[in-house]
Amino acid sequence: MFENKNRRTELSELGEFGLIDQLTKKIKLKNKSSIKGVGDDAAVIYYGTKQTLVTTDLLVEGVPFDMTYTPLKHLGYKAAIVNFSDIIAMNGIPKQLIIGIAASNRYSVEALEELYAGIYLACDKYGVDLVGGDTTSSVSGLFISITVTGEADKNEITYRDTAKNGNLICVSGDLGGAYMGLLLLEREKKVFKADKNMQPDLGGYDYILARQLKPEARIDVINHLKDIKIKPTAMIDISDGLASEILHICTCSKLGCNLYEEKIPIDVTTINIAEEFKIDPTVCALSGGEDYELLFTIEPDYFDKIKDIDGISVIGHLTAENEGVNLISRSGTSIPITAQGWDALLKKDNGKKS
Amino acid sequence: MFENKNRRTELSELGEFGLIDQLTKKIKLKNKSSIKGVGDDAAVIYYGTKQTLVTTDLLVEGVPFDMTYTPLKHLGYKAAIVNFSDIIAMNGIPKQLIIGIAASNRYSVEALEELYAGIYLACDKYGVDLVGGDTTSSVSGLFISITVTGEADKNEITYRDTAKNGNLICVSGDLGGAYMGLLLLEREKKVFKADKNMQPDLGGYDYILARQLKPEARIDVINHLKDIKIKPTAMIDISDGLASEILHICTCSKLGCNLYEEKIPIDVTTINIAEEFKIDPTVCALSGGEDYELLFTIEPDYFDKIKDIDGISVIGHLTAENEGVNLISRSGTSIPITAQGWDALLKKDNGKKS
Repeated sequence: MFENKNRRTELSELGEFGLIDQLTKKIKLKNKSSIKGVGDDAAVIYYGTKQTLVTTDLLVEGVPFDMTYTPLKHLGYKAAIVNFSDIIAMNGIPKQLIIGIAASNRYSVEALEELYAGIYLACDKYGVDLVGGDTTSSVSGLFISITVTGEADKNEITYRDTAKNGNLICVSGDLGGAYMGLLLLEREKKVFKADKNMQPDLGGYDYILARQLKPEARIDVINHLKDIKIKPTAMIDISDGLASEILHICTCSKLGCNLYEEKIPIDVTTINIAEEFKIDPTVCALSGGEDYELLFTIEPDYFDKIKDIDGISVIGHLTAENEGVNLISRSGTSIPITAQGWDALLKKDNGKKS
Repeated sequence: MFENKNRRTELSELGEFGLIDQLTKKIKLKNKSSIKGVGDDAAVIYYGTKQTLVTTDLLVEGVPFDMTYTPLKHLGYKAAIVNFSDIIAMNGIPKQLIIGIAASNRYSVEALEELYAGIYLACDKYGVDLVGGDTTSSVSGLFISITVTGEADKNEITYRDTAKNGNLICVSGDLGGAYMGLLLLEREKKVFKADKNMQPDLGGYDYILARQLKPEARIDVINHLKDIKIKPTAMIDISDGLASEILHICTCSKLGCNLYEEKIPIDVTTINIAEEFKIDPTVCALSGGEDYELLFTIEPDYFDKIKDIDGISVIGHLTAENEGVNLISRSGTSIPITAQGWDALLKKDNGKKS
């Protein structure tokens, strides 16, 4: 996905307008709703009777991305996906993307073209138009701000505060992999720092690395749910880890829940690497984050419809608020999930491993 | 506008969710079109049959703002205004604002509250809702990304590429002041650095400083034009200086123009300070930027309607593309305006002053 190029054009050679032109000249608008894209004071969008969804995300070099192991094309791809995922988590379809970039003169025009190539790749794959942006310089480092708009029918939008007592809690895909990918990259970075001749040992970890470096937004999941006529009662994407997201749904909906540890989907690669790092895989799933899977709640009547869908797991159910937000461990113990829920688990985990 | 507070709460004390809550808990949505604000994966907006306008801006510490002389409340205010101005330059009404902030731990919670206070002040004044955002940490410095959405009737939107040969070129307010304000602040910063006991000498410069530190977006101008039933054929806001903006309109509309130096509105304070700095005031107006006035073109039939409006100046007219983009100087000389148009003027200016 990432190719090396030998040219190096300084940002100052093109100037702001030249740079914007260079980066955006190939854009062809794909969506009817994209009335006017790059090249005016603002983008113009028209959804007619649909509602507009808007989300934004700011990526800062060092937090959360580290240029040592993040190819710029992957970074651009991921920056777009993260925002598509937010629109999809509202049960909407992402349609337009607006980008802001601040780069220091350490970055060349070609480097920013790589970044854009990743963004364009994501836009192409998800049918999204890049319709505007802002480019400026920074004293140090790279800062990327992405805003994505999307559309949804009024009655299709899924909020966080509309889950009901007794609803089933479902999750797409598997969890914890992106975090394991990050730990792996961090480890290889340390090895590389200690001995620059050391080649990174990343063989056999493709799935985990892709989870971290090239995540996808689960538009296929919401389309599938629409096909089988299931509208989630509440939905959120898993950017900060399962614990944090289920707490959002429970707090917003004024409910409690029981999540069953044994039901949480974790890929076998994730489990193996977690064991290598001596971390409980459940902790990775609960607190790892960046998986961009969907966490959603449905009426219990839909259980038969959903239980056999490949790649969707029913992991628990909602309860009354006073019952608390709990993880039911494999041994049947109920452990309260808090914003620092993983602390308790980490202790349990340490106990188990020691 | 800016008050000192002695509390200092570390960002780490609140955490990301605590910080967002602290900064956004007082929000009350004002616009019918703001369906869902802060607190979900994306904001939800509904304009019905109107079109949506979206613009974004990234502000980076050091470029363009300098914390030495920019109070955070002013910075927040200006960051919002700059985006409102982009929506207004499309002849639209700004309605929703989404903010992304990356701050290093050099900033306290109170500092970010000051920044938000400025943003809220701007939102209140312009009837805009803050509907979402993203907060993250940065290794160094402060980065602010602002996205604003607005609405407009399809037929009311003004683009840059729709000016016609023979149209009159108009500008609101006066130009060059914001740049003079910047030079003034830069000068006092140098004096202060050389002698920390030196108090800044900014008396009598209120207007110029306000142009730089607390600009306004000219919603009053587009409302007035609507009242008197003039729809500009093209419009842009002056963020980079008159030269750059008229070039945008001419290039996009495939036209040339004659701008008359003597017609360019410049405040007497700007002229006086420009002379102090030995800069031609016309150069300030052409290249200074950050005035956030509106540059627009109208049918020549409207001349009688517009000529007596206080605060609007007719400064030239559009011509065929092959006639070029020119400034007609006070002495009647035609000087081509290029992206570096001010270079030529600067030389002329230096000649005059020496």
